[in-house]
Amino acid sequence: MSKGDRTRARIIEQSAPIFNKQGYAGTALSDLMDATGLRKGGIYRHFASKEELAAEAFEYAWSQARSVRAEGVEDTANSVDRLKRMIDNFVDLRTGLVAGGCPLLNAAIDSDDGNPVIRERAREALRGWQARIAKVIRAGRTRGEIRKSVKPDELAALVISQLEGALMISRLNQSQKPLEWAREHLLEHLEGSVRAK
Amino acid sequence: MSKGDRTRARIIEQSAPIFNKQGYAGTALSDLMDATGLRKGGIYRHFASKEELAAEAFEYAWSQARSVRAEGVEDTANSVDRLKRMIDNFVDLRTGLVAGGCPLLNAAIDSDDGNPVIRERAREALRGWQARIAKVIRAGRTRGEIRKSVKPDELAALVISQLEGALMISRLNQSQKPLEWAREHLLEHLEGSVRAK
Repeated sequence: MSKGDRTRARIIEQSAPIFNKQGYAGTALSDLMDATGLRKGGIYRHFASKEELAAEAFEYAWSQARSVRAEGVEDTANSVDRLKRMIDNFVDLRTGLVAGGCPLLNAAIDSDDGNPVIRERAREALRGWQARIAKVIRAGRTRGEIRKSVKPDELAALVISQLEGALMISRLNQSQKPLEWAREHLLEHLEGSVRAK
Repeated sequence: MSKGDRTRARIIEQSAPIFNKQGYAGTALSDLMDATGLRKGGIYRHFASKEELAAEAFEYAWSQARSVRAEGVEDTANSVDRLKRMIDNFVDLRTGLVAGGCPLLNAAIDSDDGNPVIRERAREALRGWQARIAKVIRAGRTRGEIRKSVKPDELAALVISQLEGALMISRLNQSQKPLEWAREHLLEHLEGSVRAK
């Protein structure tokens, strides 16, 4: 990696928590200068625009979240247990995440009436996450671990919406409880209505 | 209402969609001047600060959401049916809402790392919503319509998180489906695990 590439990567890493906490419009150049210790020219040497930096910062924050949430999932044999592991990871794991909460939730709310480039990145992130969950469900149906009546896209959307909504409440109230309740509810649903008997 | 009061109310109404879409930090004075057709002095004659106006705009947006979501709830006799009506209202009703999505979801995500005054308003709004749902559940338990095993605060948080998470996905993907799936799931849960047999 060249010195320029290293600097670029460092700017992305240091800007990611700022964008994740403050949103696109709420992040001023001065905030990015404070976070990176660089002047305007030092930042814009590496990025064509604030939009480009914000998009890269989102990708970085999302890739961190994705890899944390994938921990141990591949090693779990049964499809329902895989889904449970994904849910556990979302609820339990915080280390390695960019500060400020789930990048997808933040970017989605920030961009649904806002920046179209960030919105497209958020959509892409959501599509990928839904696809990963739906793939596990499809494999589970094929292997007879998950009931044929379960609709992959529907269940994937349910899991994501339950977790993201609970995270919103948990962060606002600074309490882990809503996330714990969401987990409990989802696990009951998986055992009671998803796992093949 | 005096002319000054009318002007103040109009500024709040016209600013509410701006704050709801763009967030607190993302709303510039120039956006508020555009929305109201007033100059800086014309706005700040009525509000001590942008914070005060934002807080009032949130209260206005939230009061609109609250009254839309309460439609017909009081007239519904059975407690489980009341919960269903609340869910239906959230999913179906859009008329009368301030543009930009659920004010609570927006303000929560905007303020969890942001403005503490808005954060306190969002917390208060969430507390009130949870309390209204939990009250219906408690009444239902007392009247034998809802199982004694159902925990009011837990179920209230579940309903809210499922709906808000689904709204996030629906708005990002510009599709009503995730909200429909959330409703279907919640109604099944209410009939299968909440309503007393």
